[in-house]
Amino acid sequence: MAKQARAVATRQQIITGAARMFEQSGFEGASLGDIVDGAGTTKGALYFHFRSKDELAKVVIDEQHQTSISTVHEIAKTGAGALRQLVMLCHEMGRQIVHDPVVRAGLRLTLEFSGTVGPDQPYLDWIDSCRKLVDTGVEHGEISASVDSDTLARYIVGAFTGVQLVSQVLARREDLEQRIDEMWTYLLPSIATTRDAAELADIRASRWTPPESSTPTAESGS
Amino acid sequence: MAKQARAVATRQQIITGAARMFEQSGFEGASLGDIVDGAGTTKGALYFHFRSKDELAKVVIDEQHQTSISTVHEIAKTGAGALRQLVMLCHEMGRQIVHDPVVRAGLRLTLEFSGTVGPDQPYLDWIDSCRKLVDTGVEHGEISASVDSDTLARYIVGAFTGVQLVSQVLARREDLEQRIDEMWTYLLPSIATTRDAAELADIRASRWTPPESSTPTAESGS
Repeated sequence: MAKQARAVATRQQIITGAARMFEQSGFEGASLGDIVDGAGTTKGALYFHFRSKDELAKVVIDEQHQTSISTVHEIAKTGAGALRQLVMLCHEMGRQIVHDPVVRAGLRLTLEFSGTVGPDQPYLDWIDSCRKLVDTGVEHGEISASVDSDTLARYIVGAFTGVQLVSQVLARREDLEQRIDEMWTYLLPSIATTRDAAELADIRASRWTPPESSTPTAESGS
Repeated sequence: MAKQARAVATRQQIITGAARMFEQSGFEGASLGDIVDGAGTTKGALYFHFRSKDELAKVVIDEQHQTSISTVHEIAKTGAGALRQLVMLCHEMGRQIVHDPVVRAGLRLTLEFSGTVGPDQPYLDWIDSCRKLVDTGVEHGEISASVDSDTLARYIVGAFTGVQLVSQVLARREDLEQRIDEMWTYLLPSIATTRDAAELADIRASRWTPPESSTPTAESGS
């Protein structure tokens, strides 16, 4: 039992170490030797859990993706209006990018692999989550009935992707929360049914953060 | 004289060949051997013009960047209103991405190098061009006086960057013009002073394409 717990901890430690190397050096630049050194483990332990660098990259992308999906579900539980949930979602994604190396690595790998043809499932799932929220917002009269949920959902994902990328290049993401807020400043008046400035500001100010206990503790165990 | 013209043509041929390899395989994946083969030239010719793969990548990024800068100037010459020029600029950038391998390669390389810290000048110059247009639009009463030109310019560049990236991943950029049009659908009502739907649609429909003669002919000579 203790042995199994240790194996789980070691596996997570390797994933976090790999994430740090992928984030720093990209897929091509990260060597298994560097990953093992960075994770404070051995090649034997790495090969016990993972077959190859390809598999490690896939696991990092999957883990980031699972984090996103679970964030969508957690935010849904707040019962907030659809527009507020969309704002919360973008800000919480931004917060994860800033604080979680696995999320940053997953994004970098997804970007690298999308140079030509890459994994499109993360984008499709995220667009799908946004579309459902837009549909709900239209049903409840929060979002203008003239809005097409497919195109708006795709636009939110596209705009967010680019805003975080430019924030990364120009400011090492230090201004990311502000840039996401500006994105909603330029988006809300075009899609919300309300024209009330105070209400729009209040929607823009919506935030959600996970309870402390769910913060990843991958780096502690061994 | 003929010799010099041939050297210029060969240099451009190598740049185009390199662009195709960088676009397809990324910086790490593109080998000088592949570039030479793809360009139909020799390693000797390549090393006559360029010191290294690094220099070739830099030249490709610079060439894409120069194309953007010159597009901004050409569109300014139309004398169109600032909002129309911003719309034209985004659509012409989109057109270049679809049709010019050097532009696509420049974008991919800029993205790859921005994984951690990369070249920020292309983003800064593009944001600067947009900011000047936004300032003009505010002065002329086309863009709402409450708009901050710095944040709007940065948002336009960010949103465009992400919209084209998602179009690339999900549709090999076949829907790029439509996605850029949707971007302006969601942006214009928040920033334009006019509330007139026909006028907004007319602004959104603004396009500019370069005269036929300026289409690159790099692939013909040798």
